[in-house]
Amino acid sequence: MNINPYFTDRRTVRNYDANRKLSFEDITAMLEAASQAPNTGNMQIYSVVVTRDENLRRELSPAHFGQPSVMSAQAVLTFCVDFNRFEKWCRQRNAVPGYDNFQAFMWGVIDTIIFAQQFVTIAEMNGLGTCYLGTVTYNAPQIAEVLDLPERVVPVATVTVGYPATDAPKSDRLPIKGIVHDEKYHDYSPADIDEIYAEKEALPDSAKFIAENGKETLAQVFTDVRYKRDDNEYFSKVFSDFIKKQGF
Amino acid sequence: MNINPYFTDRRTVRNYDANRKLSFEDITAMLEAASQAPNTGNMQIYSVVVTRDENLRRELSPAHFGQPSVMSAQAVLTFCVDFNRFEKWCRQRNAVPGYDNFQAFMWGVIDTIIFAQQFVTIAEMNGLGTCYLGTVTYNAPQIAEVLDLPERVVPVATVTVGYPATDAPKSDRLPIKGIVHDEKYHDYSPADIDEIYAEKEALPDSAKFIAENGKETLAQVFTDVRYKRDDNEYFSKVFSDFIKKQGF
Repeated sequence: MNINPYFTDRRTVRNYDANRKLSFEDITAMLEAASQAPNTGNMQIYSVVVTRDENLRRELSPAHFGQPSVMSAQAVLTFCVDFNRFEKWCRQRNAVPGYDNFQAFMWGVIDTIIFAQQFVTIAEMNGLGTCYLGTVTYNAPQIAEVLDLPERVVPVATVTVGYPATDAPKSDRLPIKGIVHDEKYHDYSPADIDEIYAEKEALPDSAKFIAENGKETLAQVFTDVRYKRDDNEYFSKVFSDFIKKQGF
Repeated sequence: MNINPYFTDRRTVRNYDANRKLSFEDITAMLEAASQAPNTGNMQIYSVVVTRDENLRRELSPAHFGQPSVMSAQAVLTFCVDFNRFEKWCRQRNAVPGYDNFQAFMWGVIDTIIFAQQFVTIAEMNGLGTCYLGTVTYNAPQIAEVLDLPERVVPVATVTVGYPATDAPKSDRLPIKGIVHDEKYHDYSPADIDEIYAEKEALPDSAKFIAENGKETLAQVFTDVRYKRDDNEYFSKVFSDFIKKQGF
């Protein structure tokens, strides 16, 4: 194996250089290459909205909880599950589509994320920085309104892109043996869990997060501060209601 | 932009060379590099089961509707949303997880697919061939049984991998301007749809699919043969029941 060092060295970039412009044509060229990534039955049930206009990005900003990368990036890309185009084609060709269901939505999510991630890899290999904004599945209704998304279109990944302003830190990862299962799934013993999370828990940043948030453990920072039950349940209802409203 | 030609030339490989072996260590090395891909809050809520054993692959085969790549590949990788490991960690650290909901499942799907696609890119850039099997979201319950997947673990992508036995054909794609929207979503007129699908409909394969299936249009091959309403609705129920059973 001769793995390109880009893959192990990559990092997420949230601060962009305002002086290095990125054209719509360059973004489209990268998206075109990314669209060669695999997809379900070659239906290509996705679309991407490339938002560069500053006023429109300002309108999107609250839906992304004001994360600064929305305004500092050269473009905000909203990757959407899109059965609108495919179903219009079916109807124009005397075919009756049956894609208003959860299984079709899942194909769409999978294909859209594959497409988005292929774009991210291509952009990063070209020296660009990118950042996924998880807020897209929280505030999909507001995003749909700003971007005029019609029925059968659901945003599932937002990626900001631009040239990096500063060196971004490399993020830690769990040891790979904690994630890979040989032949079948092997459930984790308490000792396995201690071992898998030991390195992460020993990072200086972990102690800092615990102290800043007044918690006892790093896990509590996730459960009590960053990804809380009440929020998760609230945004679960918002997103599943929205998917239904969009016709799935 | 200087896009690596791999991205535009890639193709899906379903036939593998039985004589060129791929070790567990090489697969793990590629997965380790892939795990540096972005994920939600660095929770890494995914696992991958690497199945190489022939008997186990034979057990998986019916769940993938007997697609030959399951048996001819060097390995079948089942990428799963995994909150089991993360929640065990939370509980061992005096933290109460709140991830038994749809929003958490969606983060898991997104992160798992990003991880899977990064693996696919790394493998293909190393001369390997890969194929996603969409059957994973149809027959998740059977796959979970063969692979011993516990509660809070849901398979969402299956990838077969091995060295290509033959040259695989490059697959067509819609013109990128049919997928990219400038600033906001611009809905499609009937003329737009005709234009976007013209090239695909003119392919010799399209005429062949229409004739083989006794249909009038290519769209009918999708709606009446390949991805039918009855099947989609049946497998929607199977998958959403399974997700609930796994605790989301």
